[in-house]
Amino acid sequence: MSSFLPPGSTLGILGGGQLGRYMAIAAQQRGYRVVVLDPEPDGPAQQVAHQAIMAPYDDPEALERLASLCQVVTFEFENVPASSLEPFARHGVAIRPGPQVLAICQDRIAEKTLIGSCGIETALWHSIRGVSDLAPALADLGGAGILKTARSGYDGKGQARVGSLSAARQAFVNFGEVDCVLEGIVPFALECSVLAARDVHGRCATYPVCENAHSRHILDVTVCPARVGEAAARTMRGHTVRLAEELEYVGHMAVEFFVLPDGGVLVNEIAPRPHNSGHLTLDAAANSQFEQHVRCVLGWPVAPFEQTAPAAAMTNLLGDGWTAGEPRWESLTEFPEVRLHLYGKAQARPGRKMGHLTAMAQSVEHAESLVREARRALFG
Amino acid sequence: MSSFLPPGSTLGILGGGQLGRYMAIAAQQRGYRVVVLDPEPDGPAQQVAHQAIMAPYDDPEALERLASLCQVVTFEFENVPASSLEPFARHGVAIRPGPQVLAICQDRIAEKTLIGSCGIETALWHSIRGVSDLAPALADLGGAGILKTARSGYDGKGQARVGSLSAARQAFVNFGEVDCVLEGIVPFALECSVLAARDVHGRCATYPVCENAHSRHILDVTVCPARVGEAAARTMRGHTVRLAEELEYVGHMAVEFFVLPDGGVLVNEIAPRPHNSGHLTLDAAANSQFEQHVRCVLGWPVAPFEQTAPAAAMTNLLGDGWTAGEPRWESLTEFPEVRLHLYGKAQARPGRKMGHLTAMAQSVEHAESLVREARRALFG
Repeated sequence: MSSFLPPGSTLGILGGGQLGRYMAIAAQQRGYRVVVLDPEPDGPAQQVAHQAIMAPYDDPEALERLASLCQVVTFEFENVPASSLEPFARHGVAIRPGPQVLAICQDRIAEKTLIGSCGIETALWHSIRGVSDLAPALADLGGAGILKTARSGYDGKGQARVGSLSAARQAFVNFGEVDCVLEGIVPFALECSVLAARDVHGRCATYPVCENAHSRHILDVTVCPARVGEAAARTMRGHTVRLAEELEYVGHMAVEFFVLPDGGVLVNEIAPRPHNSGHLTLDAAANSQFEQHVRCVLGWPVAPFEQTAPAAAMTNLLGDGWTAGEPRWESLTEFPEVRLHLYGKAQARPGRKMGHLTAMAQSVEHAESLVREARRALFG
Repeated sequence: MSSFLPPGSTLGILGGGQLGRYMAIAAQQRGYRVVVLDPEPDGPAQQVAHQAIMAPYDDPEALERLASLCQVVTFEFENVPASSLEPFARHGVAIRPGPQVLAICQDRIAEKTLIGSCGIETALWHSIRGVSDLAPALADLGGAGILKTARSGYDGKGQARVGSLSAARQAFVNFGEVDCVLEGIVPFALECSVLAARDVHGRCATYPVCENAHSRHILDVTVCPARVGEAAARTMRGHTVRLAEELEYVGHMAVEFFVLPDGGVLVNEIAPRPHNSGHLTLDAAANSQFEQHVRCVLGWPVAPFEQTAPAAAMTNLLGDGWTAGEPRWESLTEFPEVRLHLYGKAQARPGRKMGHLTAMAQSVEHAESLVREARRALFG
């Protein structure tokens, strides 16, 4: 099969959240058909796709059906079971990025091993396969670390900061004694991410480095460009390209980094998909991360990936803002330079990503203050 | 009812073509629900909307149903029967732009009368209510003119260039002797359009003047900014704002102009909706014409409406390009700076607008040559 899929072809998406929604819109704008598989009814992507299949990600019949409808399949999150990809391989459906990416990126041990094999630094870490691995690992890390399940973690779920062996044991038991990693605590100065898209011909484009602030393990505010030195930025972009090549990646991915006080950088993790920190590319890039993803997945060459404004900022709108009732939407009319995005989720829950705000400005400080003020006006 | 409709409200759209599709996407990105009414199955807008009602624009039951589902209704073309709006008024659904806009803009006689009443020039014209009106009108225009049906014309349909009384009579009979206008032929140097959005508070924003080249009465290429003097550009933008105010317009509209060799300008017609020449705002504006339209229609303030590149160009992709078989899609991969938009239409017919290409560049000449070369590569 040619690696290029002409308009009129059908893209299958595993996962129907906001990332799938923006992928669907980007593909539809280029004349492709989109079918989404997701377990939830009326999810963000289903609302806009040509067709939706409501089923769990491991439902064999649903997967068969999707495989028979599409010429290429992609996913919006890395925790799709690897076995879910088999029907697509059997039907000759292109899987982009490839199954090797899922296999590596859904397992912190495999991912950190790959990163290390590229000569790229991460935080110190040890794999924890059983409770007896904890004591030597913790001792090596100076008595404190972060225990993370090797699989299925996101937004801080499956993570515990531990400062003693008893706490580490308790956390390991709480996680059901599944495979974990114990990571050393990194006294970072800044968290950053690099967005990258790599096409079927191996050409890779990266976006200027994003700077991310988290709140309770969930991304709170991204600004771009990050306030880091040129050397650190160049290193992070270089590492990201190297990892994309090593993964033989096709599509859009993000690499999260810690920047140390001395300007050194460590990879935190790889997100094999569009990334929350890349949402500002919807408004501040020649081509958004979603456009880049579908371009690459559909066999188009990667497109220019520059920022179109001197500075941009994005802040998430979490369901927490809905607890006191409907947000004060009309207050946003006072911020004409702030752009509202909502994902069409009917139910607001604490920690749930309902939408985001972006602003472009002459400086990151100004862009950031715009989105923060607008959010304050909205949520009080 | 408040003029501001919060996210989660439902927008109804009469018409399911590409204009409706982009309106739907813009509204959905802000968290609104969208229901489209259109007679065609699987049309461009239905493919992406939350819900679609397939029925003629004058089907009373379908209109009742749409009116019961939405809080505001808009339309993607001006030939919706005025009576189709009655169920919405009855249900208390906001109609934006208002019914007065449809009433005027779907009738060339009413539209030209309004333009004249604002002291704004058009080509010389006469209303033709019967065959006996032709001779004096034609004599006044120097023996040649363009006969246009007062209602239901678009893309050159319902128009005939006439150079003699017998030709004029023949054309009038061919049109079924419906009300017409006979316009003088304008020896224009350039055709231009001004895109404008006006919000519920009466604030109006215009985009830089677009320059339009037609081929067989259908828009072929738009470049922006238009190659006109500053005074002509200022006059066209001023006239557009004046007409939007006169119409008490809410939403996005476009005014088409003739620019004369001496720099004078005449209004050709008003398009009460997003406009084909505004498609380049999807890629070359802080906020596209569709975002502006849904912002205004949903009660948000009009947003900044500047061009984000020094120059932009757009060319339509007509169904004619499909006559020799599927276009050479892969050839577009040689033009990474050219953006492809397709509307998801299954059937290509000559003259049918299937999609468009845009490019941004440092000069309009460069942008225009990019889209023209890309289209040539695509269609051969």
